Amino acid sequence: MLRARALPATLWRALVGSPLETQRLQYEKLTKVKGLAVFGADPLSSNAYATEEILRVLVLMGSAGVALTIPVSLAIVGLLVVVAVSYYQTIHAYPSGGGAYVVARENLGMGPALVAAAALLVDYVLTVAVSTSAAVAAITSAFPTLFRFRVELAVATVALVTVVNLRGVRESGTVFSIPTYFYIFTFGGMLALGLWSALTGELPPAPPSPDPGAAVHPFSLFLVLRAFASGSTALTGIEAVSNGVQEFYPPQARNASRVLVGMVVMLGTFFLSVSYLAHHLGITPTETETVVSQIARRVLGDSWMYYLVQLGTALILFLAANTAYAGFPRLASILARDRYLPRQLANLGDRLVFANGILVLGAAAVLLILLFHADTHSLIPLYMIGVFVTFTVSQAGMVRRWLVQRPPAWKLRMPVSAIGAVVTAAVTVVVAVAKFAEGAWITLAVMPLLVSFMKAIHRHYEDLKQQLSLERAKLPRPFRAHKVIVPVNNVHRGILEALRYAKAVSDDVTAVYVEIEPGSREEIERKWERWVPDIPLVVLPSPYRSVVGPILLYLDQVQREAGPDTALTVVLPEFVPRKWWHHLLHNQTALMLKFALLFRQRRLRRYKVLADVPYYLTR
Amino acid sequence: MLRARALPATLWRALVGSPLETQRLQYEKLTKVKGLAVFGADPLSSNAYATEEILRVLVLMGSAGVALTIPVSLAIVGLLVVVAVSYYQTIHAYPSGGGAYVVARENLGMGPALVAAAALLVDYVLTVAVSTSAAVAAITSAFPTLFRFRVELAVATVALVTVVNLRGVRESGTVFSIPTYFYIFTFGGMLALGLWSALTGELPPAPPSPDPGAAVHPFSLFLVLRAFASGSTALTGIEAVSNGVQEFYPPQARNASRVLVGMVVMLGTFFLSVSYLAHHLGITPTETETVVSQIARRVLGDSWMYYLVQLGTALILFLAANTAYAGFPRLASILARDRYLPRQLANLGDRLVFANGILVLGAAAVLLILLFHADTHSLIPLYMIGVFVTFTVSQAGMVRRWLVQRPPAWKLRMPVSAIGAVVTAAVTVVVAVAKFAEGAWITLAVMPLLVSFMKAIHRHYEDLKQQLSLERAKLPRPFRAHKVIVPVNNVHRGILEALRYAKAVSDDVTAVYVEIEPGSREEIERKWERWVPDIPLVVLPSPYRSVVGPILLYLDQVQREAGPDTALTVVLPEFVPRKWWHHLLHNQTALMLKFALLFRQRRLRRYKVLADVPYYLTR
Repeated sequence: MLRARALPATLWRALVGSPLETQRLQYEKLTKVKGLAVFGADPLSSNAYATEEILRVLVLMGSAGVALTIPVSLAIVGLLVVVAVSYYQTIHAYPSGGGAYVVARENLGMGPALVAAAALLVDYVLTVAVSTSAAVAAITSAFPTLFRFRVELAVATVALVTVVNLRGVRESGTVFSIPTYFYIFTFGGMLALGLWSALTGELPPAPPSPDPGAAVHPFSLFLVLRAFASGSTALTGIEAVSNGVQEFYPPQARNASRVLVGMVVMLGTFFLSVSYLAHHLGITPTETETVVSQIARRVLGDSWMYYLVQLGTALILFLAANTAYAGFPRLASILARDRYLPRQLANLGDRLVFANGILVLGAAAVLLILLFHADTHSLIPLYMIGVFVTFTVSQAGMVRRWLVQRPPAWKLRMPVSAIGAVVTAAVTVVVAVAKFAEGAWITLAVMPLLVSFMKAIHRHYEDLKQQLSLERAKLPRPFRAHKVIVPVNNVHRGILEALRYAKAVSDDVTAVYVEIEPGSREEIERKWERWVPDIPLVVLPSPYRSVVGPILLYLDQVQREAGPDTALTVVLPEFVPRKWWHHLLHNQTALMLKFALLFRQRRLRRYKVLADVPYYLTR
Repeated sequence: MLRARALPATLWRALVGSPLETQRLQYEKLTKVKGLAVFGADPLSSNAYATEEILRVLVLMGSAGVALTIPVSLAIVGLLVVVAVSYYQTIHAYPSGGGAYVVARENLGMGPALVAAAALLVDYVLTVAVSTSAAVAAITSAFPTLFRFRVELAVATVALVTVVNLRGVRESGTVFSIPTYFYIFTFGGMLALGLWSALTGELPPAPPSPDPGAAVHPFSLFLVLRAFASGSTALTGIEAVSNGVQEFYPPQARNASRVLVGMVVMLGTFFLSVSYLAHHLGITPTETETVVSQIARRVLGDSWMYYLVQLGTALILFLAANTAYAGFPRLASILARDRYLPRQLANLGDRLVFANGILVLGAAAVLLILLFHADTHSLIPLYMIGVFVTFTVSQAGMVRRWLVQRPPAWKLRMPVSAIGAVVTAAVTVVVAVAKFAEGAWITLAVMPLLVSFMKAIHRHYEDLKQQLSLERAKLPRPFRAHKVIVPVNNVHRGILEALRYAKAVSDDVTAVYVEIEPGSREEIERKWERWVPDIPLVVLPSPYRSVVGPILLYLDQVQREAGPDTALTVVLPEFVPRKWWHHLLHNQTALMLKFALLFRQRRLRRYKVLADVPYYLTR
């Protein structure tokens, strides 16, 4: 986290606000209504793009393909039910929160747990990138003139959400309820009206395609599978509620699982309705307007209600992006505490949020948005792999748990989880194959990198712990003596100050002078005799005019003669100019000596202590 | 100068060779023949471009303009004689070397001296840039396919000359004689042959211009003046010998002045010959072939002799560039000793050369070559201002000297210098006006900047001297006590090592722990009691989870209570990882504390001494 002072600090404070005391840290408890708002935003918002993903594949096969929209959607809803039932069990098994990482760590060991962790970290980043891009698409569908600014809009949105989260979002439940329920009512209302009009015939079905031969590809099972894989993006986010069981009012598991059920029912209904209307109205995906926007425009006309629906869609998508800002930093801090990520990620910042995690998430999402030009469709293949790997590992963990713990009715529960695991594993394979070239390869490449990166970090921390450990350690033998060496280049006030300090910390002080200009020793010896006759001055020759070399050799010699029981301090007189550019006007011998000593010590693995005595210039 | 160790150091050694001992520093004495080679390269080489500069202006007026080539050249030779006579006097007045800076400093004071210094510094850089560009032009005239690589060739040449000079050029006199005399014989021979052929009619004169109306401009006195100003570039470098009088065998002044005379005669003859032949042969400047190359091609045909002439021209121009590598670092070191430039420029490097000055010169020349695409013609306006300001200040200094010292025959000598001063001042004004927009403005802007920069540096060094001065200084009162504070975050081997050191340097050691996680104090206090019960541990609360803030406040409080007669040392335990990226895995609290302390001390102008106790990790 940024802790610098001065100008950067001032800017930082202005952005995130003043520090908060640790004792203000407490969690709000969620009712079911608020819980649906908090955990429902991510899954419900995927309605904004899931049907469109199916259509984008099916249209390749012409009207014969598009005819499959409803069957493919039904298959996806089936998958949704399987996964939801499985998570229903997870919620009851882990009332304190059962994210994929926790479930895998407990039941499958660290290897699968790290795979789940990598998949989740990637997912959170993609949740931000995809949801923000889709939100911007909802806006630019309504206001096409904004289309060419979509990348800028998306980046600005991520920046805003990042800053808001750095400040700390306190009143989450209540604040989140507004956009979620606004979306549910506007979007749900539009769908209901659309279905009514379609069934009553007010909204005429699509005319038969004017060009039935427009198929780019012949009908193929592979493309149907690809459509199914693409549409499965509807499932993204349904796992969130299993992470946050402890945030509900008790009985926590019951409340959380009811929210899950409500959420899944609503998600399934919305999804099927969108698919039905898209098919009924013969809507085809375009570059600049979303399928959902086209449906809303047909149902509502270009009225103010249409704009409300688009606003609702954009709002819930922003909220979905915001969800990742809770999940990513929390998971990163758990991984950091388990020593699999840099420990800076485990620190609660001064606003009581994991500021470093928030910053990493925001930066990664911005990078993806820039790379993929804020195009939802290009980002989704990257997203899906992470989502379904998470599902699979999580369900597999549950299977293992039922087998080992054998609680009541485990023979009933295990198959549910097993079916979930097998189905999601199958979908993972389908996505990996069908969407490999479209971007899934990126996630498939990044995940193992992340895992080995986390393992390397862990190894370092373990090594460190062992090396610093006090087990079998003895108190180091005290030093018997303390020798101080003061390199000097002259006699002036700064030098006198350094010698004053040296005399205060040791009775054994020696000054060393390197004679660069032959004959200069006489002058310094004269001054020395006058000002500090009580401190011995050693003059070192330097035939090659190096200052640092002779001092290093001298220090090595002193160390050798004094032996390991003598502490050796090098006191460096330094004057500190008032203006930064004045530094350029000095020889920087002190700095060079410092670096040379550090470098040499590192090689020799012996240390001398460096003490800087600054002398402050006033002009 | 670069003094870093490890890889950079290895590269540096490979480039410049091993260090040389100070006692090897001695100067070779020059005979007249060698002196002409050393000091003649710069002025003689200007023949490669001086006539071309005149023609480039005169052709603008068509054939009426070109007809003025000879008169304008004669006027320039007149100027050359005036300046040369004036420098003849300078050589005798300053047998130990009378560069413009020295003459001005002694006779006119620091203001004009700094102007001369700035002009000279700019000049040296332009000598390198112009001579190298002209040398490359000589080569690309002979081999036109190389023309598009001229910038790369010029930059590579400057880099090579820089490295050679960093190694130190020892055998200058002998080595320089070869290219200089090679040039004198090949170029002089070509001119003699050309003149003979022209006079005997073997080389027919130019046919009357086929397009007499091709004048871009009507005849104007301003353009004639501009041609004169442009051609005066022939004079560049004639001052060099007055800088180096002490390098000659005794009688030094006599030898040096004879070399000056020989040089001026040769320069004048060559210059007039080139101008005559160019006019006789009706040669007009082109973008890709120099005027001199065109003359040589006409005189010698496309024979091997033509290539020898081009080679000779290129060689003497390289040598001219090399001359600046002696002058610039020497002048910079004099200015640095006078405290007008950073003192790093005064250091003799380990190869007994002023390495920093050489590097600055090379870098500045490369910058100019890149900015002006290695185009001699574009660079010359920048060059001229510096050259003529130097001449003017130097002659004015001599005038003042005659007036003040009144040596025998001063009434005769003063007017010579005065005429020189007035004429060169007039040329400076002409150049400034006639070539302002072509680039002279750059030099006119840079020079005052350089002067005020040098003054600011001087002010800083003077301030520093006063602040560090021991005049009226008293020995600072010795410290009565020494307190050590050790910030700790745990108890481990690194901490024990730091405490061991702390106990060796003081009897008054206190450890401080900042309690970030409420309740963590119990654990550290338990460990503390077991391992280091003899050292008091202060636990600081940190409601805002900052480590640095509470420690800073605590240190301030300790300092206040202890009073000014107690030395206060902060001992920082640090562990040093083996791999650089491991640094990223640590909280860097020690580093942040260090920066915060430095920043705070700087503001409060009070100091605490920081002592790092490193603990070296082995894995």
